[in-house]
Amino acid sequence: MPSTQRYGAGIWHFATYVDRYATDGYGDPRSVIDAIDLAGQVRDLSVVDLNYPFFGGSFTNEQVKEALDRNNLGVIGITPEIYTREFAKGAFTNPDPGVRRHAHELISEAADVVRYFGADYVKLWPGQDGWDYPFQVDHGALWKNSLDGVGLLASENPDLKFVIEYKPREPRVHMSFDSVSRTLLGIERIGLPNVGILLDFGHALFGGESPADSAQLAIDYGRLFGMDVNDNLRQWDDDMVAGTVHPIELFEFFYTLRKNNWEGVWQLDQFPFREDSVEAANHAIDFLKAADRGLDKLDFAAVQAAQDRHDALGALALAQQALFSSYE
Amino acid sequence: MPSTQRYGAGIWHFATYVDRYATDGYGDPRSVIDAIDLAGQVRDLSVVDLNYPFFGGSFTNEQVKEALDRNNLGVIGITPEIYTREFAKGAFTNPDPGVRRHAHELISEAADVVRYFGADYVKLWPGQDGWDYPFQVDHGALWKNSLDGVGLLASENPDLKFVIEYKPREPRVHMSFDSVSRTLLGIERIGLPNVGILLDFGHALFGGESPADSAQLAIDYGRLFGMDVNDNLRQWDDDMVAGTVHPIELFEFFYTLRKNNWEGVWQLDQFPFREDSVEAANHAIDFLKAADRGLDKLDFAAVQAAQDRHDALGALALAQQALFSSYE
Amino acid sequence: MPSTQRYGAGIWHFATYVDRYATDGYGDPRSVIDAIDLAGQVRDLSVVDLNYPFFGGSFTNEQVKEALDRNNLGVIGITPEIYTREFAKGAFTNPDPGVRRHAHELISEAADVVRYFGADYVKLWPGQDGWDYPFQVDHGALWKNSLDGVGLLASENPDLKFVIEYKPREPRVHMSFDSVSRTLLGIERIGLPNVGILLDFGHALFGGESPADSAQLAIDYGRLFGMDVNDNLRQWDDDMVAGTVHPIELFEFFYTLRKNNWEGVWQLDQFPFREDSVEAANHAIDFLKAADRGLDKLDFAAVQAAQDRHDALGALALAQQALFSSYE
Amino acid sequence: MPSTQRYGAGIWHFATYVDRYATDGYGDPRSVIDAIDLAGQVRDLSVVDLNYPFFGGSFTNEQVKEALDRNNLGVIGITPEIYTREFAKGAFTNPDPGVRRHAHELISEAADVVRYFGADYVKLWPGQDGWDYPFQVDHGALWKNSLDGVGLLASENPDLKFVIEYKPREPRVHMSFDSVSRTLLGIERIGLPNVGILLDFGHALFGGESPADSAQLAIDYGRLFGMDVNDNLRQWDDDMVAGTVHPIELFEFFYTLRKNNWEGVWQLDQFPFREDSVEAANHAIDFLKAADRGLDKLDFAAVQAAQDRHDALGALALAQQALFSSYE
Repeated sequence: MPSTQRYGAGIWHFATYVDRYATDGYGDPRSVIDAIDLAGQVRDLSVVDLNYPFFGGSFTNEQVKEALDRNNLGVIGITPEIYTREFAKGAFTNPDPGVRRHAHELISEAADVVRYFGADYVKLWPGQDGWDYPFQVDHGALWKNSLDGVGLLASENPDLKFVIEYKPREPRVHMSFDSVSRTLLGIERIGLPNVGILLDFGHALFGGESPADSAQLAIDYGRLFGMDVNDNLRQWDDDMVAGTVHPIELFEFFYTLRKNNWEGVWQLDQFPFREDSVEAANHAIDFLKAADRGLDKLDFAAVQAAQDRHDALGALALAQQALFSSYE
Repeated sequence: MPSTQRYGAGIWHFATYVDRYATDGYGDPRSVIDAIDLAGQVRDLSVVDLNYPFFGGSFTNEQVKEALDRNNLGVIGITPEIYTREFAKGAFTNPDPGVRRHAHELISEAADVVRYFGADYVKLWPGQDGWDYPFQVDHGALWKNSLDGVGLLASENPDLKFVIEYKPREPRVHMSFDSVSRTLLGIERIGLPNVGILLDFGHALFGGESPADSAQLAIDYGRLFGMDVNDNLRQWDDDMVAGTVHPIELFEFFYTLRKNNWEGVWQLDQFPFREDSVEAANHAIDFLKAADRGLDKLDFAAVQAAQDRHDALGALALAQQALFSSYE
Repeated sequence: MPSTQRYGAGIWHFATYVDRYATDGYGDPRSVIDAIDLAGQVRDLSVVDLNYPFFGGSFTNEQVKEALDRNNLGVIGITPEIYTREFAKGAFTNPDPGVRRHAHELISEAADVVRYFGADYVKLWPGQDGWDYPFQVDHGALWKNSLDGVGLLASENPDLKFVIEYKPREPRVHMSFDSVSRTLLGIERIGLPNVGILLDFGHALFGGESPADSAQLAIDYGRLFGMDVNDNLRQWDDDMVAGTVHPIELFEFFYTLRKNNWEGVWQLDQFPFREDSVEAANHAIDFLKAADRGLDKLDFAAVQAAQDRHDALGALALAQQALFSSYE
Repeated sequence: MPSTQRYGAGIWHFATYVDRYATDGYGDPRSVIDAIDLAGQVRDLSVVDLNYPFFGGSFTNEQVKEALDRNNLGVIGITPEIYTREFAKGAFTNPDPGVRRHAHELISEAADVVRYFGADYVKLWPGQDGWDYPFQVDHGALWKNSLDGVGLLASENPDLKFVIEYKPREPRVHMSFDSVSRTLLGIERIGLPNVGILLDFGHALFGGESPADSAQLAIDYGRLFGMDVNDNLRQWDDDMVAGTVHPIELFEFFYTLRKNNWEGVWQLDQFPFREDSVEAANHAIDFLKAADRGLDKLDFAAVQAAQDRHDALGALALAQQALFSSYE
C-alpha cells in the first residue's frame, strides 16, 4: 500500500534571506508568487504555509490562489508577520498598547486569509516577544500580556485554530514562548480548545528537549496541531536540511507521531541560505520518505518492549536498522 | 533596621566529593556530623538541608540534632538520596516496580525525618529519572510515572510539603523534571496543594531560563516553596560560588523575590570541589548580604517604570548602581 | 592622575540593523555620516572603526574625514565588507576564484583607506568563510585558502597591519577562524610580522574561552593588535552592552591587558538593536571607566600571590571589591 | 577483500563508574583483570588502552599480560592517572611543585609500562589542569607549566610517543588543553617529534569543532597519533555509544582519515554507565564496520568534486547513501 503521507513547507523556504551581515541578501528578492512557483517544482509537496502580508509585492488572495492552483498546492496555515520593525519590542507584549492593538488587527486579517484559503490554522510565532537583558521587563506582566493576546484572538475566532510555534530565542535573546512546557502551561491557562502548538523539531532540539518527548507531551494534552522539521547543531535555530545531522532523533520524532496515530502533514521549515531551495526540499523529503518507509518496517511491539526495560541499545538496534535500510 | 534575612545551605556543601575521574575523592570523606560542625563555622548560617540517609556512618536523628544544636543550626529540608546506585535507571520511573516501591519507602522515611526535625519540606531531586539515548524510553509512560510517584507521596502525607528541584540534566543526559515550566505543568496535573518547586538559580541558568522569570512564574502559580543559589557558566551545573560569574542576574532573582514579598531562606547549593567549604560559604554569603543591602537601596518604583517601557539600560543603571555600591 | 585610557567603537554601533525576520530593519537606515554624528554624541569616544565601502550612500574619504573631524574622532581601523551577498560562500575560501580575487581587491582598497586615515590596521572578519554541513568542504583546502588569502595581503602591504577577528560561528554554522588558538596557529603558519588578532571579548566567551586567557595567549605570541568588548549569554554573539552580564570576567580581561602593559584602545562592538545607540555606548563606557578605576585600586601583587596558589576565592575577593567599589 | 581495520577500546569502557551522586557506583567495582576479560568478549577488539596504575588491586605487568593474552588483546597505549585526588588542582600545572614532580614520576613509570607492553604511546589526559573561576590563575604561567611538563617527558623519553587528549572541560570548568588548535599550538611550541594528539571524536564535537576538520588539521601538522570515538549531545562529554546520535559526522571523520591514508586503530572511549559494556562495544563496532564498508562504497572523487564546489547537498547525498546502505 503506497504511503499517504503528505508533505508541506513554509513558503519562506523558497524566498531569499537577509541577515545582519549580508544586508544585500543571499540572492535577489523573490515575491510570494516566485516562491510558490519554486515550491511547485519540489517532487512531493502538497501544502504550504504562507506569510501574511504576502511578500514581494501587492497581491490579492485570488492572485495567490491562482499561483497555488497552477502548482497543485494547498494552504495549511497563514503566518502573520508579527516580528517586523514595528514589533521589534514585541507584538502581544509590546510596551506600547497601540502596537499591541495593531498586532491584533494584523492577526485578525490573517484569520480571514485562513478562511479564504480553507487553511488549518493561524500560526503565531511571536519571535520579538521576550527580553534581551536582565532587569529589562516585568516578567509577570510580560507573560500575562502574551496569554491575553493569544486568548483574545482565540475567543474572537472560535471557528479557527491558532497554533503557537515556540522557540528558545532569536531574534530576542529570550523568547516568551520558549519551550513546549511553557507553551502548554500558557495554553492551559488560556483554557480554550482552539489554541495548540506547532512543534518545530529544530526548536525543540535547540531548546535541549527531546523532540519525541515534546511531541508526546503536546499530544497527551491534545494540543499538537501541527509540526515542521529541519536540523541544526542544537545550539541555534540553523534551519538546516532535515536529516543531515540528527537522523535518528528525527526518526524517533516520526515514530512518536505514528505511534499516537497523529496523521497531519510533515512540513519543512528550512532556510537554505546558500543552497538551491528546490534541491534542499527534495533532499529533505527523500529523507522523510525513508523515515516513513522505516516506520512501516519497524517492529513497534519490539521497540515498546525494549523501552519498557529502558533498554536503549535494544531499541536503537531496531530503529537504526529500520531507518538506514529504508534510505534509497 | 538590620536585615532579618536568613541564610541556609545544603549540608553537602561541607562534604567532600567524588567524580568519575577522582574516584578517590577530592578530600577525605566526612560524616554528616563533620559537615554540620563545618557549617557551624560559617558566619551567618541558620539552617541546613540534610541528605537522608545521613552520610558517613550510622547516626540517629538524636545524634544529628545534637550536632545541629551545638552549632545553632535548624533544618529546612530533608533530601532523600533517590539517585544512588539502586536508582541508576530512575526512582519514580525505574522500569523495575520493586525499585519504584523502594524509592517510595525511602522517601516516606525521609518524611518522618522532616517531622522529627520540624523541617519545611521533603526535597525531591530525581536526578536519575530521565533518559540518555533516543528511543530509550516511552516518554508518555515515563512522565506518567514521574507524576504518579510524586502524587502518591503528596497524598499520603498531606501534613508535609514536597518540593521538586528540577534540572536539565546530570547525571542523566536528560532529566524528566527539566525546567520550571515542565515541573509546574506536572504539579498542576498532580493537583495537590502540598507539592511545589525548589528553584535552584544555577539550574535555571543552565536550562537557558532567566532565573528571575522562573521565580515569578512559580510564584504566580503559588508553587515557589524554596530556593537555593550558586553559579555556573550556563552550560553545566557547576555549582560554583554564588555571585562570582552572574552577579546581576542573581540580583534580579532576589529583586523578584522581594518584589513579591517572598520571605523564605536564601540557601546555598554549592560544590566546592577544590575550595575550603567554609570560605566558599562565607564568600557567597558576603555577596548575598550585599544583594540584600542593594535591594534596600534600590528604587523599586523607578525600576518598575523602566520595565514598563522595556527600558533595559534604564533599569540596569539603577540595578548596577544599587548592587555594586552595596558590596563591602 | 587622570586616566589616559582611550575608548573607541565600531561605527556600526550607530547604524541600524536588519535580520532574517525584521527585514524592514530595526529603524530607518543611517549613512556612515549619520552614524559618525551619533558617535560624536557619546561622552568619551576617541576613535572609530569604519566599514568599507562606506554605508548609506556614496561618500569620499574627504567627506567622511570632515564628519569625523567635526566630531573629534579618529580612525583606528577599516573593516572591508567581505561578508555580503557576493561572499556568501566565502571571501578567501570561496569556491569561485573570481570571487576570491574580488575579495582581495576590496581589501586592497580598504588598505588604501587605512593609509588615507592613518588608521592602525585593516580588520579582517571573514564571517562567511567556513561551512554549514558535514561533508560540505575539503577542510584542508579551505584552511589553506584562508591562510593564503591573508598571507598574500600581508606580504603585499608590509607597511600595514592586518588583524583577524575570529568568531566561532554566524553567519556560517562554523567559521574557519573560530578561536584564538586556531587563529594564532594560522598566523604562525603565515609567518609575517604584520598579521595579528583583534580579540573580541564576546567572541571568546561565546567560544567557551576565558577572554583573559585568550588575551594572555595572543600577547605571549606578540599578536594582540586590537580588541573590543560587549557581552552575551555565552551561546551566541549577542553583542549586548558590555558589563551587563559578565562584569567580573570583563574585569579580568582588562586586568590581563594592564598586567602586560598592553596600552591600546578599549573598543566597543555592540549591536543595540532595540536600544538608543548613544545611551548604549555611554552605559558601556561608564562600566569601562569603573573597570579602569578598579584596576588603579586593585592590589596586583596580592592577586598574583593568590593566583600562584590557584586561590580562586582569595583572588576574587580582591577583584570583586576593587571593581564594585569603583562603579559610580 | 576483507577489511583489515582494527578496533580498540579504553579498558575503562569495561569498568564501573562513580559520579558525584551515585557515590556507591553504577555497579560493583571491577579490577583491570575483570575488565580485560569483558573486553575479550567483544566481537572484534584487537587492542586496549590501559589506565596506570592498574585499577582494582595490585597487579604486575605479567599478570595483566597474561589476562590480555588469554583474550587475544594487545596494548595500544597506557594512560597514567594524573587526574585523581592528589592532582585535583592539576598535574603539570599544580601550584605545588612537589605534586608536579609526582606527576612526572607517575608518567615516567607509565612510560616503562608502555615499553613493557610494546604499546604505541603514553596517553596524557591532564583533565585537572585548568581553572574553575575567573581570576583563579595566571594564565600565562599555567600554560607554560603545561608545555614544560609535557616537553620534559618527551625529551627524556625520545624512544616513545606521547599523545595529548584534549577536552574543553570536565572535571575542571576549563581544561588547559581545550581544543585541537590549542593543543597543536602547544605541541609546535614544545617542538619535539614525539608529541602528538589523541583525537577524541566526542571531545571535538563537545568543543564546537567539526571532528573531520580537527582530524585534517592534526594530520596536516603530522600530529595525529591516535583517535577514539563515542557520541554526545555536543554539550558535554557524554561518552555515549558511537553512531547513536551523530552518524553522519562520524562517517565524515572516518572519511577524512581514509582520504589521508591514516591507518591507525579505531578506538572506543565510551562510558556505559547503565548499559552492558560488552553490548555497548558491540553496538558501536557494528556501526564502525558499517562506516568502513560505507567508505569502500563511497565515490571519493565525486565527493571531492562536490566539495570543490562547496556543494553540501551533493556531497551529503553521496555520503548518506553510502553509509546508510552499509548498515546491516
